[in-house]
Amino acid sequence: MDAPLINRIGVVKRNIVRADAVARDRLTQFGSATVHEAMGRVGLLKSYMRPIYAGAHAGGTAVTVLLQPGDNWMLHVAAEQIQPGDFVIAAVTAECTDGYFGDLLATSFKARGARGLAIDGGVRDVKDLTAMGFPVWSKAISARGTIKATPGSVNIPVICAGALVNPGDVVVADDDGVVVVPADIAAQVADAAKKREDLEGEKRATLASGVLGLDMYKMRDALERAGLRYID
Amino acid sequence: MDAPLINRIGVVKRNIVRADAVARDRLTQFGSATVHEAMGRVGLLKSYMRPIYAGAHAGGTAVTVLLQPGDNWMLHVAAEQIQPGDFVIAAVTAECTDGYFGDLLATSFKARGARGLAIDGGVRDVKDLTAMGFPVWSKAISARGTIKATPGSVNIPVICAGALVNPGDVVVADDDGVVVVPADIAAQVADAAKKREDLEGEKRATLASGVLGLDMYKMRDALERAGLRYID
Amino acid sequence: MDAPLINRIGVVKRNIVRADAVARDRLTQFGSATVHEAMGRVGLLKSYMRPIYAGAHAGGTAVTVLLQPGDNWMLHVAAEQIQPGDFVIAAVTAECTDGYFGDLLATSFKARGARGLAIDGGVRDVKDLTAMGFPVWSKAISARGTIKATPGSVNIPVICAGALVNPGDVVVADDDGVVVVPADIAAQVADAAKKREDLEGEKRATLASGVLGLDMYKMRDALERAGLRYID
Amino acid sequence: MDAPLINRIGVVKRNIVRADAVARDRLTQFGSATVHEAMGRVGLLKSYMRPIYAGAHAGGTAVTVLLQPGDNWMLHVAAEQIQPGDFVIAAVTAECTDGYFGDLLATSFKARGARGLAIDGGVRDVKDLTAMGFPVWSKAISARGTIKATPGSVNIPVICAGALVNPGDVVVADDDGVVVVPADIAAQVADAAKKREDLEGEKRATLASGVLGLDMYKMRDALERAGLRYID
Amino acid sequence: MDAPLINRIGVVKRNIVRADAVARDRLTQFGSATVHEAMGRVGLLKSYMRPIYAGAHAGGTAVTVLLQPGDNWMLHVAAEQIQPGDFVIAAVTAECTDGYFGDLLATSFKARGARGLAIDGGVRDVKDLTAMGFPVWSKAISARGTIKATPGSVNIPVICAGALVNPGDVVVADDDGVVVVPADIAAQVADAAKKREDLEGEKRATLASGVLGLDMYKMRDALERAGLRYID
Amino acid sequence: MDAPLINRIGVVKRNIVRADAVARDRLTQFGSATVHEAMGRVGLLKSYMRPIYAGAHAGGTAVTVLLQPGDNWMLHVAAEQIQPGDFVIAAVTAECTDGYFGDLLATSFKARGARGLAIDGGVRDVKDLTAMGFPVWSKAISARGTIKATPGSVNIPVICAGALVNPGDVVVADDDGVVVVPADIAAQVADAAKKREDLEGEKRATLASGVLGLDMYKMRDALERAGLRYID
Repeated sequence: MDAPLINRIGVVKRNIVRADAVARDRLTQFGSATVHEAMGRVGLLKSYMRPIYAGAHAGGTAVTVLLQPGDNWMLHVAAEQIQPGDFVIAAVTAECTDGYFGDLLATSFKARGARGLAIDGGVRDVKDLTAMGFPVWSKAISARGTIKATPGSVNIPVICAGALVNPGDVVVADDDGVVVVPADIAAQVADAAKKREDLEGEKRATLASGVLGLDMYKMRDALERAGLRYID
Repeated sequence: MDAPLINRIGVVKRNIVRADAVARDRLTQFGSATVHEAMGRVGLLKSYMRPIYAGAHAGGTAVTVLLQPGDNWMLHVAAEQIQPGDFVIAAVTAECTDGYFGDLLATSFKARGARGLAIDGGVRDVKDLTAMGFPVWSKAISARGTIKATPGSVNIPVICAGALVNPGDVVVADDDGVVVVPADIAAQVADAAKKREDLEGEKRATLASGVLGLDMYKMRDALERAGLRYID
Repeated sequence: MDAPLINRIGVVKRNIVRADAVARDRLTQFGSATVHEAMGRVGLLKSYMRPIYAGAHAGGTAVTVLLQPGDNWMLHVAAEQIQPGDFVIAAVTAECTDGYFGDLLATSFKARGARGLAIDGGVRDVKDLTAMGFPVWSKAISARGTIKATPGSVNIPVICAGALVNPGDVVVADDDGVVVVPADIAAQVADAAKKREDLEGEKRATLASGVLGLDMYKMRDALERAGLRYID
Repeated sequence: MDAPLINRIGVVKRNIVRADAVARDRLTQFGSATVHEAMGRVGLLKSYMRPIYAGAHAGGTAVTVLLQPGDNWMLHVAAEQIQPGDFVIAAVTAECTDGYFGDLLATSFKARGARGLAIDGGVRDVKDLTAMGFPVWSKAISARGTIKATPGSVNIPVICAGALVNPGDVVVADDDGVVVVPADIAAQVADAAKKREDLEGEKRATLASGVLGLDMYKMRDALERAGLRYID
Repeated sequence: MDAPLINRIGVVKRNIVRADAVARDRLTQFGSATVHEAMGRVGLLKSYMRPIYAGAHAGGTAVTVLLQPGDNWMLHVAAEQIQPGDFVIAAVTAECTDGYFGDLLATSFKARGARGLAIDGGVRDVKDLTAMGFPVWSKAISARGTIKATPGSVNIPVICAGALVNPGDVVVADDDGVVVVPADIAAQVADAAKKREDLEGEKRATLASGVLGLDMYKMRDALERAGLRYID
Repeated sequence: MDAPLINRIGVVKRNIVRADAVARDRLTQFGSATVHEAMGRVGLLKSYMRPIYAGAHAGGTAVTVLLQPGDNWMLHVAAEQIQPGDFVIAAVTAECTDGYFGDLLATSFKARGARGLAIDGGVRDVKDLTAMGFPVWSKAISARGTIKATPGSVNIPVICAGALVNPGDVVVADDDGVVVVPADIAAQVADAAKKREDLEGEKRATLASGVLGLDMYKMRDALERAGLRYID
């Protein structure tokens, strides 16, 4: 049976349409929270995806991988599909926190030009990865290794940590999490993020001067209408 | 119906009795573990409340907030009630890990004189908050934003991460967790904490010299009575 | 009834056979992932065991402790059994995340020559422990203290975080986790780890030069046989 | 130091003011969801509190217990304070899922007239408890027994599974969870619950006839104002 | 900005293409495990989705709903889109275990011809739902109610419990979990499931007669090649 | 390297020493809580191991299996080693909740005389297993199937859900959990369990008559010495 591409096992798609490089790099300048807001509060991976070191911040075009539990074979297959500016998104067909990725794969990914990895599983060699400056967002850290026995897929649409990621989408990740921007709206979202960040600068200055959000956002009437009462 | 104040929704109490400022600042010099012990091993928030950066240590008088899930409106209302030396405690009426608090609110809280925040939910902009030195203890870090649609309350007694917090109580938080001291015993607890810490200094020196706790605490007889046997 | 030693409560074994000190120190030079692989992918504690500070790395011969929930009495008993080069492994008879260990015990353990602690429970005073450079791997961080009322055991075989640890085994722990090597194969595992690490150096250089793992490991045929298809 | 009653350890309060028996029994006729709504959506224990058998439904006046981790001594002390129509609420000072309660204690509680138990810990002998028809709501089921070594308290205010419970409050529990009604508003809440349930009967008939909630609740305008768009 | 449909908030799609009714009803005769296998081991919701009563088994064409945390407004909007034979799939934009669905909505859904609900959140009134025979699969059971304040969407593609569901897909759910079959392959999957089940009948008889799977599946050679050794 | 047997991968031990059949069947008459207490409160699997249907109660001699994540090959290998009166204990080398076991394997296990299964992973076909009366205790229920690619082991010592199980040990499981009794003390533990149960009968009658545990166990003095105070 010819299952729909999202779930097809055993396939590597070589030619994918990557988001525009300019839009990708503009988006990478923003934090994940800003991008997430700019896109209308969608596209965020679950909050259990944490960076392996504080201050990690990266963005790139998605090369997607679908792994089998306890098996990292497809990460090697994915390496060949990486182009400079890519960011690897690895989903697993089952919940399994083994350490699928370590310093050898990171060396290879880096040599190919990858900017980071988000994996809905475990990672290891985090001290080395930190020293290399190769940022990874993961569900777990685990020294436990994996086998290379069963094919998954590369560059099919995957659901990673609760979010749909299509190959070529823009990924932006930092201390706050990982957000995915569909390739065809990357430029628009970058514009919206820029606008949002400009506005935030003004708001920050206003709030820093002691003006309350209640007044800056003119919330007092709405709060009263919603029934909020002040007592002494 | 006039529900008891602990659960009253839609209320902001303006005048609260804050713990004595001297006691508050004395307590803030101790770690949460010491304060918790000094108070008789009570008052601790659940251990899933973690600081957003290592080394965070803060204390203040509680301004309490009750939030609705996915809604941070009341944090703006709370900002107005903050006085220098306060520490905001935010509970949520349901389990929800969204990012209720970020750098704009932190700017406002800081301008009002807040010393920190403990929130039984999520926080975002952690890189900015770390750079600002505004410490937050939370259940999660999440880029996901919230709405402003439904009132909660400010300065009512709340249950936050399993602990009852009354407005005006002293909060002490560090790497080990968050502890709450009722306002009316703040000075006594500070005394007890001081005494405990003084004793710990002596004990530390004794143990560092190689004396065993078994001997320093004279535990050998009790262990034997409890049936402990040594074998070779 | 004379229960088997693994579960015997109320016993302290004084004379244990420690792994060879040279093998122990050789093993300590490797990371937990390397040791785990060298031993055939066994012996790893569950991945919820995390170091209290990034970059922690330690190894030693196991002194084992079996604690009762909320009771750290046996850690004091264990201190006396510690010899220089030991690493304490603490299991608990029930799931309980209280802070069983803090800076006073760490002072004592350090004075006795302990190199670290892995505890399937909570720890506190993490700022002090970090300052002291005493590394701890734990399930939780909690300011909540414990009592000293019920005996457990010291130096019996224990199951800690899902792994069997015999007293005298070698423990190696770092950012990736905690692995246990049976005393009688410590030297062999150290040899295997050395061989593995030497090979990794070569592989790393090859991958860094841009050669793909697909080619370096000669995976292409096996992938094709396994049914992997490339599409455009 | 005279700590506030909520956290006082080692105290048994004998004389407590129980909610009115008529109000208690009226409330017991409703489900926990109805009571929770009638009270303004407050007073609910966390949803991890599950009944040991399907169809359990009970209500009574709270006798509260504060237990130490792995220690069920205070449940025996509590038995003496039980009067017919009471419902025992057991909190634990730390997270611990041991089996604190089994068929012997249930026999005693039943002989005293207890109607049920909610415990923020574990329970065992669930087959016997089911056969006896003694309903328990708990966080876990565990065969692991507990010791009797350290005092807690009876009939002090406790926080159980995230909710504040005062001795004498009315507890209503069923398949949906456990809700607590402050004693002084028990009759009012019973009235509100009755009103709500009467209304629900009418609504149920309307919806069963095929009328949509959109029309019955007149939601269409509000949805349009909120920006909801219909597309084909 | 015109975000892609998968994430569009505030939209109700009225005309959806439902899977063929015959294929839907054929699929419903199989268990979720059989369907999942027949489709190539894809399409399964996470295993935390549990039925509210044992023995629940239902299937239908998906009406999808995207809810906001703590807000069940869109379930009322969805009711109007239900046709006989449908099965409602409800995702939530954030993790929140409140009780979004109860007996009133179930009455309405049933009157519209719905066969079941799978919701990545909480449900309440489970005793009533069980008595009505309206099956629900959910992440939690909670008496806590929700508000009606913020629009989500109906009949857009959603990610529910880790699986992508398009409106019109076939959903099959039983004690083992919930599986989703894309509408355009429903008939093929039903064929494959039938074939599988027929084969299983023969296998079951063979195994029941005492023949080993090792022999029936002819595994002995492969096991030997994989290095399995028998010892005495 | 010849790793110690507990962790040896790729081995099937054919001749194991099973506990005495009389002791096994005597132990099976007791509940897991009674056996656990009789053995000195040891030997219990973690409380997340739950039966697939209420009222399940079984006991047998352990055939142990070590599985790889997402791979159930070894369960087929184990089937051949089952003798009437055995109970299969399946551990997994990594955390993975896939459905390793279903009705076909259960048919085979039953034909071989197995009395039950405890698996630190997932199970499926629970409706069929319930209908067959084949009891399973598991960490999860999941329709997701597994592969047959990588050897594990059969009849080596395993750690299953936190407990060490040697092949031939007696396993007793019921609604309260799963407990393991070493083969060489099975008869002694059965005697102790019998004694305990006889005593419980008397205690139950005494408590049912209204006598308090406080008096029956003569706890009042100890409570007073421990500092418990009664207040009015």
